[in-house]
Amino acid sequence: MKCSHCSRDAVYFQRHSGRHLCKKHFLNDFLKRVKRSIKKYRMIEREERIALAVSGGKDSIVLAHVLSKLYGERRDIELVAITVDEGIKGYRPPTVKIAKSVCKDLSIEHHLISFKREIGMNLDEMVERGERNPCSYCGVFRKYLLNKKARELSASKLATGHNLDDETQTILLNFLQSDIERLARLVPSKVQEGLIVRIKPLREVYEKEVVLYALINNLPLMVDECPYSRTPVRAVVRDFLYEFEKRYPGRKYSVMRSFEALIPCLQSMYPQIRLKRCKVCGEPTPKQVCQACELKMELGILGLHVSDGDYAYKSRQKSSKN
Amino acid sequence: MKCSHCSRDAVYFQRHSGRHLCKKHFLNDFLKRVKRSIKKYRMIEREERIALAVSGGKDSIVLAHVLSKLYGERRDIELVAITVDEGIKGYRPPTVKIAKSVCKDLSIEHHLISFKREIGMNLDEMVERGERNPCSYCGVFRKYLLNKKARELSASKLATGHNLDDETQTILLNFLQSDIERLARLVPSKVQEGLIVRIKPLREVYEKEVVLYALINNLPLMVDECPYSRTPVRAVVRDFLYEFEKRYPGRKYSVMRSFEALIPCLQSMYPQIRLKRCKVCGEPTPKQVCQACELKMELGILGLHVSDGDYAYKSRQKSSKN
Repeated sequence: MKCSHCSRDAVYFQRHSGRHLCKKHFLNDFLKRVKRSIKKYRMIEREERIALAVSGGKDSIVLAHVLSKLYGERRDIELVAITVDEGIKGYRPPTVKIAKSVCKDLSIEHHLISFKREIGMNLDEMVERGERNPCSYCGVFRKYLLNKKARELSASKLATGHNLDDETQTILLNFLQSDIERLARLVPSKVQEGLIVRIKPLREVYEKEVVLYALINNLPLMVDECPYSRTPVRAVVRDFLYEFEKRYPGRKYSVMRSFEALIPCLQSMYPQIRLKRCKVCGEPTPKQVCQACELKMELGILGLHVSDGDYAYKSRQKSSKN
Repeated sequence: MKCSHCSRDAVYFQRHSGRHLCKKHFLNDFLKRVKRSIKKYRMIEREERIALAVSGGKDSIVLAHVLSKLYGERRDIELVAITVDEGIKGYRPPTVKIAKSVCKDLSIEHHLISFKREIGMNLDEMVERGERNPCSYCGVFRKYLLNKKARELSASKLATGHNLDDETQTILLNFLQSDIERLARLVPSKVQEGLIVRIKPLREVYEKEVVLYALINNLPLMVDECPYSRTPVRAVVRDFLYEFEKRYPGRKYSVMRSFEALIPCLQSMYPQIRLKRCKVCGEPTPKQVCQACELKMELGILGLHVSDGDYAYKSRQKSSKN
């Protein structure tokens, strides 16, 4: 099959547009769409220092490659990468290696931080010691560390590799579970002191396009799934969206458009809360104590007694477990 | 298996509540939930005359039976049934017979109106003559006639048999197709001159519960599908919701809750348009000419030339087709 734009062989059939694309036209189209999303949501403007969350998985590697391609030559825009090593035996070390090497190739300053050093405990140890599911610890601490590190690096934005498939799964999942508050959290946030604005430049490209972009550019594709990954309900939604998109190409975009249409409503239903400073660590939080410090206390990593009236940390500690 | 509330044998396992129910407790629960929906949405209050749209299918038959049970003894509430015979050979006659006989048994005044007499043409003839899909003609003319007849009967509300499955399919379908305007149309409407407020008393009971209610009460179950029914995308959504509900019982309620949470937003995004009178037939419409009259003109049933500047009916007529 020939490319719809030139005489070269097509490597990709873009079902939702009905076009066959050769390598060159696929890459052009991919970059054009990422650029359009960035512009539409004003993700990156002038004089910015963008911190990239680079786990070493396919999405974050493509994110680094794409942003480097789009902004590498710009003098007023700086890219800096952060990799969080959660401490997952067997799974994380190879991706950390990939992250380091790709950032080196792209001349992006790379920072490696670990749960062990920053939080005081590996994820593997948390899972062994605590009672929550692994994703609860990982999600909270990863976000916490990424924000803290990005701020320390004076970044104006924190970019993550979420693609169209990730985003639409989350949107539909929250809608199906009637979790409108969580749906509202997907609304791009405004600047708040201490909190680095998160951006998702790949939110309008399909996951399979991210994979193809990586393949064409010879980027290392790490496809192992996290051993702790166990979200069966998300898998059900993912499979449905896959089938639905297959029958009715472009429907993932429709889900995104539905969500976007509801953004003003979601903003008025859940206005951005004015953040406080965590009484323990000083990081931004809507509560007295941030979730990371709460989890630390649960895990017995933090045994502070804060003299704040309504917050009895001591009682929340599982001293019996240690 | 025994009933969760008494020593009788259970006939139904209500997955979302985890209860086994005998006939008696199933019926109690069913009626209680219908009553709760009616109250929550103020569907039926004092001194009302409720017109029921009774096609003769299982949902509308159960609707008639339930409302008769709940309000049959009330002196200030009157029920009256309307059956629309669209003129679908083979399919409609048996359901018309069922509708008539059930209304007779329930002592509900019954009115039969037909496309042939009111519009001037059977649905079968429209499909043969016109170019649109059958559901377009049927949907527009059925709504049109039901509203007109209900108004002529001085009804304060028009009740239809939509159940939880129907409603959640429509909600999710519109969300997946990014048709937020159509989603907004599901918001219960306010009183407007000429337009009878539509209510859906069965919107919070599952389709399978409607079937069980009919079986227990020995109501005639017409399960034939309309020969014109061909909505593959809705079938895909229906199957997904079925599977999702099976794995995660109660999720159809979650979809309903999501929709309800968004109602204030949808209302502010699509405020109720002040209706005009159709220049041709005088029925309420947001446009100059109502959809029913537009379709009639297309089908060559109506050949009026209305002296309204911006509406050249004549040109819309397909005179060549007759």
